[in-house]
Amino acid sequence: MSKSAPGSDGAAKATATPREAGARPPRFDAAFKAQFAELVRWRRDVRRFRTTPVAPQLIEQLLALAVHAPSVGLSQPWRFVLVETAERRAAIAENFARANLSALEGYAGERQARYARLKLEGLKQAPVHLVVCADEETTTGHGLGRQTMPETIRYSVVAAIQTLWLAARAEGLGVGWVSILDPDAARATLDLPAHWSFVAYLCIGWPEEEHDDPELERHGWQERRCEQAKKPLRR
Amino acid sequence: MSKSAPGSDGAAKATATPREAGARPPRFDAAFKAQFAELVRWRRDVRRFRTTPVAPQLIEQLLALAVHAPSVGLSQPWRFVLVETAERRAAIAENFARANLSALEGYAGERQARYARLKLEGLKQAPVHLVVCADEETTTGHGLGRQTMPETIRYSVVAAIQTLWLAARAEGLGVGWVSILDPDAARATLDLPAHWSFVAYLCIGWPEEEHDDPELERHGWQERRCEQAKKPLRR
Repeated sequence: MSKSAPGSDGAAKATATPREAGARPPRFDAAFKAQFAELVRWRRDVRRFRTTPVAPQLIEQLLALAVHAPSVGLSQPWRFVLVETAERRAAIAENFARANLSALEGYAGERQARYARLKLEGLKQAPVHLVVCADEETTTGHGLGRQTMPETIRYSVVAAIQTLWLAARAEGLGVGWVSILDPDAARATLDLPAHWSFVAYLCIGWPEEEHDDPELERHGWQERRCEQAKKPLRR
Repeated sequence: MSKSAPGSDGAAKATATPREAGARPPRFDAAFKAQFAELVRWRRDVRRFRTTPVAPQLIEQLLALAVHAPSVGLSQPWRFVLVETAERRAAIAENFARANLSALEGYAGERQARYARLKLEGLKQAPVHLVVCADEETTTGHGLGRQTMPETIRYSVVAAIQTLWLAARAEGLGVGWVSILDPDAARATLDLPAHWSFVAYLCIGWPEEEHDDPELERHGWQERRCEQAKKPLRR
């Protein structure tokens, strides 16, 4: 749609290389916006993967798009790590099992029983394990914008993750964010550079099933409350 | 594209209400994916706004989509605040001016001169000022997923911000994230609930200009380094 007049259906002429197209600002028509809304609504935190491999080029393509996320001072602090060895994957699975047991013990009664029934990760099945880190000491961007709010270096990385997540969903790929981990133990397992903070452990693969409702809602843990956001505070 | 066969051009049949459509999983064709990639590449951190108002319904629409972002344990911790009074906006502008002067004093020589020439916010022009917070004490989600990594409550909020940002860009709206602020002073100015953490101060409005390169790159502060992300570490 980049080269078509506003409002026309230029999908067939779409290009992924705006610079080559003369860098004319794109216009996004109603059909695209409706599709984008569907993409956002059908993105899921996936824990049920098929073991079918994912082409490495597809992962590269997702990363290449993710790095167009906003970053504080254009610091581009995202650092990616593919976890490939069976030993490291097993250590991460054990890390999860310990943290999950500890979390389970924090619940009681019916809530605990419900927690025990949830499937909270797809570490064993997902063909791709992608760790996303923030380089806390990068000089890229010359420190601009993060003197008073240094956490924005990690927030930039999260913006890249959400971009990757949506791009993955558009390809039919599922992404699951495993946060039930001891991050220090994970850092040790993965032998990460000391100045990289551990932001996310992502499982990526072809999902076993597709839903427009979150797994935690479908399994009775927590309902969505989308209505409340429509009423922001006013100051 | 939700109701059409994979690969067909179903844009004209797109719907924003998958549940009403029978919740059939959407398929995203090559044209959509190319357009989505353009959306990501043409999203900018905007500091040059026209003062033309933005319809409140449009902001509501962006928020309604943003809350479909992933959140840890489905905690949905995003809280939105519209900053509307002239007094509060002036206090935020002064907050920025102080933080920016302090940042300027941290640079020297040519780098300092370059910093001084940058336009780093559009607080005075942007018709909409949106603060995005994280409710650190929400019981929604029953604490699931954030025992070992409590920062994921704030990361969830950032995922909502990036979703809103892309949705805004699709509408032709610009978003600018002002991080050169003393967050404690901003919290006081905005009289935020004590358990809300201050994640982002966003300016939203119609941009004066559109670019596919970041303002900081265009004005010689920092170049993009998209290539490096294609070479993740392997572990």
